[in-house]
Amino acid sequence: MQLRVSASSTQVMDQSPNKTSSGVPTVVDVDLGNRSYPIYIGSGLLDQHDLLQRHVHGKKVLVVTNTTIAPIYLDKVVHALTNGNPNVSVESVILPDGEKYKNMDTLMKVFDKAIESRLDRRCTFVALGGGVIGDMCGYAAASFLRGVNFIQIPTTVMAQVDSSVGGKTGINHRLGKNLIGAFYQPQCVLIDTDTLNTLPERELASGFAEVIKYGLIRDAEFFEWQEKNMHALMARDPGALTYAIKRSCENKAEVVSLDEKESGLRATLNLGHTFGHAIETSFGYGQWLHGEAVAVGMVMAIDMSYRLGWIDESIVKRARDILQQAKLPIAPPETVTVEMFKSVMAVDKKVADGLLRLILLKGPLGNCVFTGDYDRKALDETLRAFCKS
Amino acid sequence: MQLRVSASSTQVMDQSPNKTSSGVPTVVDVDLGNRSYPIYIGSGLLDQHDLLQRHVHGKKVLVVTNTTIAPIYLDKVVHALTNGNPNVSVESVILPDGEKYKNMDTLMKVFDKAIESRLDRRCTFVALGGGVIGDMCGYAAASFLRGVNFIQIPTTVMAQVDSSVGGKTGINHRLGKNLIGAFYQPQCVLIDTDTLNTLPERELASGFAEVIKYGLIRDAEFFEWQEKNMHALMARDPGALTYAIKRSCENKAEVVSLDEKESGLRATLNLGHTFGHAIETSFGYGQWLHGEAVAVGMVMAIDMSYRLGWIDESIVKRARDILQQAKLPIAPPETVTVEMFKSVMAVDKKVADGLLRLILLKGPLGNCVFTGDYDRKALDETLRAFCKS
Repeated sequence: MQLRVSASSTQVMDQSPNKTSSGVPTVVDVDLGNRSYPIYIGSGLLDQHDLLQRHVHGKKVLVVTNTTIAPIYLDKVVHALTNGNPNVSVESVILPDGEKYKNMDTLMKVFDKAIESRLDRRCTFVALGGGVIGDMCGYAAASFLRGVNFIQIPTTVMAQVDSSVGGKTGINHRLGKNLIGAFYQPQCVLIDTDTLNTLPERELASGFAEVIKYGLIRDAEFFEWQEKNMHALMARDPGALTYAIKRSCENKAEVVSLDEKESGLRATLNLGHTFGHAIETSFGYGQWLHGEAVAVGMVMAIDMSYRLGWIDESIVKRARDILQQAKLPIAPPETVTVEMFKSVMAVDKKVADGLLRLILLKGPLGNCVFTGDYDRKALDETLRAFCKS
Repeated sequence: MQLRVSASSTQVMDQSPNKTSSGVPTVVDVDLGNRSYPIYIGSGLLDQHDLLQRHVHGKKVLVVTNTTIAPIYLDKVVHALTNGNPNVSVESVILPDGEKYKNMDTLMKVFDKAIESRLDRRCTFVALGGGVIGDMCGYAAASFLRGVNFIQIPTTVMAQVDSSVGGKTGINHRLGKNLIGAFYQPQCVLIDTDTLNTLPERELASGFAEVIKYGLIRDAEFFEWQEKNMHALMARDPGALTYAIKRSCENKAEVVSLDEKESGLRATLNLGHTFGHAIETSFGYGQWLHGEAVAVGMVMAIDMSYRLGWIDESIVKRARDILQQAKLPIAPPETVTVEMFKSVMAVDKKVADGLLRLILLKGPLGNCVFTGDYDRKALDETLRAFCKS
């Protein structure tokens, strides 16, 4: 996969990032040769029907959504697709909500609906929902008739800043997450920040953990902007949300483009994820949201970086402060022990030749490394500092 | 998909096509840019262990085969993969044999085995069997961890001349065939003509229907070669088989490369398939083999071409003669009626604006057209001539 990003926003967001983007969407162009696509970001974009309609090829659309999102946004999306566009007919399939339904049985419901509706190769699948819906709808679009058009309308911050770039789609197997899937690019991603108004606060904050991550690993300026604007983000200010999502998508696209094969640089997108994954596994999936575990994981990775003498104490403090502003946790659940961390981390995918490689901050704010070359004592000290036993 | 073929055989088959290709394989290079791959064709290729081993990346291989093929060839393939290659470990999954098992439930058995065997992204899937195994294993390889290496070892003429080129993989849905799948290219295709020695004669002949098709639609010289060598093909002469498979793969690759989007030219690969599909549907799938129905379908399309005055009578006779030499049927089952043909053909994918487009021969041997511009009377006459009622 070749991926380059061109930050050709149609408004000069960097000069006045907090202004509400009424009317003109911010656009991030993901450059993938003949599979390039735009990410539209802004308030009220679902009311700009032309944005969606210009990316619908063929006359039939299948909207894939879930029981939580359908009552709130399905009618709006159907209207956006069909208003002034009588040639298009829209079908929908409403899946149960939750990661536990991200499996082959649920995927078959999408195929069933597509086939019963006699959709052909010129149809378009639209994913309306969070990351689970995006992953499943994308994989269904990749597989139906060996590939049909696909549009993403992500409705969570996590899906907007993480799933909009990279083309990863798929489902879980009972023995592991995301083991079956495809790399498949959408025609466009439409992010209407107004859909975040109905997002529960914990989920909003969970998404901000990933936004904060981009600042910490590679974009000090963005981090500083977040420090000044976290209140606006938590208040769901459309201009602030648009800017944060735009910068996150641009950062992800740049990293992916520089390292398509996930050899090194791309791993840095997983800052905090190794510690976080241990928390999710030990504490039980579904207890904590992904971003909550990542937030604590980042605090632990930063603590370790400091113990190694790789960063200044001010970074430790600023990271904790901004995560707390976002109402994210900064310590693991009390029931998670040092041993639990060690046993989960021992089987991490980033273990090579028995050595666990970690993403750690090093140098001034916005710099990190992916390395197995660190003093094991620092890791032990961090684990003991964060666990009661 | 960009696809070009370069007929860089490592031996000069065109000069002595009937010589047994002992030792040096014939190679058809399918040129797809960075997804190019070779098709190796010849007798005894499964004894040339280097051929397979050079295309195995990583240390783990999963052979996907079925209950019919496994007892005959699985040990041989495992030996070919591991002999002198102690770093490679091979797992296998043996699926039930038959088109009716080409579904999601069976596909999950492949994923189960791959995951239980802890295969990673560097593993290789090997399809050992006919078209059903190739389609399912290819789709599994496309989807497992979002894509792993894939090698095809087709063991039927039909799979060797039809599935080796084009990258189509997939499974059936209860409401239709091949509705779920992916375009996915193999690392290589290894065709050991010796595997045809255990193929039932009806299946052998069924594959030859597709071989004859390539001659009729675009390669008069190849057709003439077949007229002289059908006895050698039916006797499973390795040199003749190698040449027939090579020319078929080259013809298919050329057609696909000239028309990636299946707009017109590529449809010509379906000579006889519209009539044939009506026979399969009316008579019941599984009663006749696909190639048997295609054989009759070609006879009917050629009869119609003659009634339209588009071809010389000699072509009609030569086509019937060669199909009969291959012990293929040249008339539909007596129970299939004109009405049955008409009702199935009315919902054919090639109907556009109510008009059924057909592949018909036109001009000298080796020329055809894909058109809806023909006298309907000729179609009616053909149907009446071939049906008792």
